Amino acid sequence: MIVLDKIVMPKGFKAGGIHAGIKKAKKDMALIFSEKECSTAGTFTTNKVKAAPVKYDISVLKRPKHGLIVNSGNANACTSERGDEDARKMAEIASSFLGGKAEDYFVCSTGVIGVPLPMAKIEKGIKDLSSSLSPSSEALMDASEAILTTDTCRKEASVKIKIAGKDVIVTGFAKGSGMIHPNMATMLCFILTDADISSSLLQKMLGEGVEDTFNMISVDGDTSTNDTCLVLANGEAGNDEIVEGTEEYALFKQALDHILMTLACMIVKDGEGAGRFIEVKVEGAKSKRDAKKLARSIVSSNLVKAAFFGSDANWGRILCAMGYSKADFNPDEVDLVFSSSKGSIEVFKGGRPHPFSEEKAKMILQEKSVSVLAVLHDGEEKATAWGCDLTYDYVRINGDYRS
Amino acid sequence: MIVLDKIVMPKGFKAGGIHAGIKKAKKDMALIFSEKECSTAGTFTTNKVKAAPVKYDISVLKRPKHGLIVNSGNANACTSERGDEDARKMAEIASSFLGGKAEDYFVCSTGVIGVPLPMAKIEKGIKDLSSSLSPSSEALMDASEAILTTDTCRKEASVKIKIAGKDVIVTGFAKGSGMIHPNMATMLCFILTDADISSSLLQKMLGEGVEDTFNMISVDGDTSTNDTCLVLANGEAGNDEIVEGTEEYALFKQALDHILMTLACMIVKDGEGAGRFIEVKVEGAKSKRDAKKLARSIVSSNLVKAAFFGSDANWGRILCAMGYSKADFNPDEVDLVFSSSKGSIEVFKGGRPHPFSEEKAKMILQEKSVSVLAVLHDGEEKATAWGCDLTYDYVRINGDYRS
Repeated sequence: MIVLDKIVMPKGFKAGGIHAGIKKAKKDMALIFSEKECSTAGTFTTNKVKAAPVKYDISVLKRPKHGLIVNSGNANACTSERGDEDARKMAEIASSFLGGKAEDYFVCSTGVIGVPLPMAKIEKGIKDLSSSLSPSSEALMDASEAILTTDTCRKEASVKIKIAGKDVIVTGFAKGSGMIHPNMATMLCFILTDADISSSLLQKMLGEGVEDTFNMISVDGDTSTNDTCLVLANGEAGNDEIVEGTEEYALFKQALDHILMTLACMIVKDGEGAGRFIEVKVEGAKSKRDAKKLARSIVSSNLVKAAFFGSDANWGRILCAMGYSKADFNPDEVDLVFSSSKGSIEVFKGGRPHPFSEEKAKMILQEKSVSVLAVLHDGEEKATAWGCDLTYDYVRINGDYRS
Repeated sequence: MIVLDKIVMPKGFKAGGIHAGIKKAKKDMALIFSEKECSTAGTFTTNKVKAAPVKYDISVLKRPKHGLIVNSGNANACTSERGDEDARKMAEIASSFLGGKAEDYFVCSTGVIGVPLPMAKIEKGIKDLSSSLSPSSEALMDASEAILTTDTCRKEASVKIKIAGKDVIVTGFAKGSGMIHPNMATMLCFILTDADISSSLLQKMLGEGVEDTFNMISVDGDTSTNDTCLVLANGEAGNDEIVEGTEEYALFKQALDHILMTLACMIVKDGEGAGRFIEVKVEGAKSKRDAKKLARSIVSSNLVKAAFFGSDANWGRILCAMGYSKADFNPDEVDLVFSSSKGSIEVFKGGRPHPFSEEKAKMILQEKSVSVLAVLHDGEEKATAWGCDLTYDYVRINGDYRS
C-alpha cells in the first residue's frame, strides 16, 4: 500500500465544488459523478431524529449509483415532509442533468438544523456543477472544501494498492468538527475507489472499519442527525472482482481502514476548539467490548478533557471515567501511563498511585498530541479511542453557533 | 409541612465542623452524633471504582448508627488496602471517643483522589470534634461548611411536619459542585430526622426519592467514586413509628422528597462554573422511563449546555439530544417551549420549526433560571431533570483543579 501525499481521483470519477449561495461566501455544494455504475456501501447516524437526506440515502442504499450530491450550510434536518421531498428532489435534479434515475444518486446535507433548503439555489448549483465536472485532483479538492462547515481545514487521504497487477486508488474526504461522538456523528465521509468489488462485500468491510475508527472518536459526545459515511466503487481499475478471504481482500481492507482511520483522526484534530489530540489505548481487557467501552468512556469525559486542557496528569479522573463505563475490569489491577513525543511516565500501577515527577508529567502533557495507556491485566483484548481536550474555544464556538 | 427558613437541628442530634489541617485553611472535618441509635438508609455511587469509605459504609449500612464522620480535602479513593484500613480506622476512632463500635458510625470523604489520608490529622480532628459537639443550628452549619470542596456556598434545608401530634424535623445538608451527573455523583448528602421510622421503610423512601431528584441532575456527566446519600433517624420526636400506607407515611415522604429536591437543585445552581440553571420537563411520554431518558439526555448534552451559555434558542440541539437518548418517541409529534420569568416562547410544534421572535427568545434565555418543555403527545408520563450551562469557568476550574 502506498500512502499518497496528495489526494488523487480514482479512474472514472469526476468532481466539482462551488459556491451556490447557501452560505454567504464559501463553497457550499459538491458533486461526485461516475459514468460507470458504482457498487455502494453506507453507514448512518443512529440518532432517532434522522435528517431527510439520511432517510433518503438509507432507502436507496442498495441500488447501484452514479454519484452523490452534497450541500453544506443547511442540514435539511427537522424539516418534516417538505425536507423529505427536497432531499428526493436534489437527487432528481442531479439525474436530470447527469442521466439515470433519482435513485442513482446519494444526497447529503450538513449545517443548520430546521431551516428548509433554498431549492432554487440548490437547483442552480447542481446545474452549474453538472456542466463543470472534472477528473482533476483540484476538482476533488473543490468538492472536499465545499462540504465543510465549522471545520478549519479540508480532510483528505488517498492510497494506491496493486490488485493482481492493476493499480487501484482508494480516496476519501470528510468533514465534521463538532458533534463528533461514537456511533457516527455530524460527520460526512465519502470514499471513492476504482476497485471492482461487490456492494455486499464493501458494506461488510465498511461496517467493520467504521466500528474501529469513526465509532471510536469523540469531540463532544453529541451524536447528530446527519452523519453519513458512503463508499462508491466503480470498478474502472479493471481488476478481477475482489473476493472474500483472498490476499486481495485483505489488501483492499487495509487500504479502506487506513483511509477511515486517517480521516477520523483528522476530524478529531480539527474538533471544535480542540487544542490537543488525545489517544486512549486500553490493553489487557477481558473482551474487545470492555476495552472499547473503557477507551470511549475515558476519551468522552468532560473532566478528563478539561484536565488535558490544563496539561494535568489527573489519573483520578481517568480511573473515575473507567469506573462508570459499565465495562468489566478490576480497578485494583490497573496501570496508567501518559506519553507524548517528550517521553512517557507511569502514574498508577497495580491499582495504586505511582510516584512521578509533576514537572516531567507537565512537560509530556504540554505537547499537541498526547496519549494515555490503561493496562488492565485481565485478558488479551485491546482498543483505541481518539478525542480532544475541552477548551474555552469549544464553549465560545458552541455558545454562539446559530445566532 | 412547614419549610423552615433556617437549618434546624432535629432533637437528640449534635454536630460540629472544624479545620483539622487536611485543607490549607478552610473547615475540613464534620461530625454528627446521636446518643440514641438511629435507623439508617443510604444510596451510593454506581461507579465501579468506589472510594474506601463508600465500600465501608455499604458494608455497615444495615446496622443502627450513632453518627457519621466526614472529611473534605481528600477523597480516600484509589488508595488501595491502606485506604480501606483508614476508612475503618476513622470509624474506630469515632467510636473510641463517642462510645459504641466502629460499625456504629458512617464514614465519608471527598476531595482529591489517590492520596492517602493524613491519619494523624484525622485522629486529632475527631478528638477535637468529639469534645466540642453541640445541638445548636450553628454547629450544624459548621458541619455543613466543613464538607464543602469547590462549592461556593453551603447547601442546607429543613422542614417541620406534625406526625400524630408530635413535631418532627427533617434536615439535610449536602455538597458537590463538579462531577454531578445522574446516578449519584461527587455528592455527599446527609439527612437527619428525629422521626421514628424503620430502616427498611427509610431505605425504600430514599431510593424512590433519589431516583427523581439526585439521579435527575447533571453538571458535567461524570459519575464519581465517592457519592453518598445517608439518612439517620433517631426517633427522638416521640411519634408512633411511621407505618407504610398511612397518612403519616405520605407526609414524611413529602418532607424527605422536599429536602432531596431542594438540595439537588442547590447543587446544580452551584455547579462548577454554572452561570444558568436549566430545568428540562418532558411531558406526554409513553413511559416514565422514556420521559427520564429524554430529560436527562437534553440536560447532559454539551451542545445544549453551550447553547444556553450563549442564550441561544437552539431547539435543533435539543431535538438532536432527544434523538440519541435511546428513548421511544415520535420526532414528528414533538412540541418545544422555552420559558423563564420573562415569559415563554414556542419554537417547535408538531415536529416542525415554529416561527418565533429571536429577540423575545434572547430576552427569555438571558435569565439566570430557564426552562425547556418538551411535549411528546405519546402518552401520559412525565419527568423533570435539572442542569446548568457549559461555561468558560467550567473549563477554567477543571483545567486546573489538581495542580
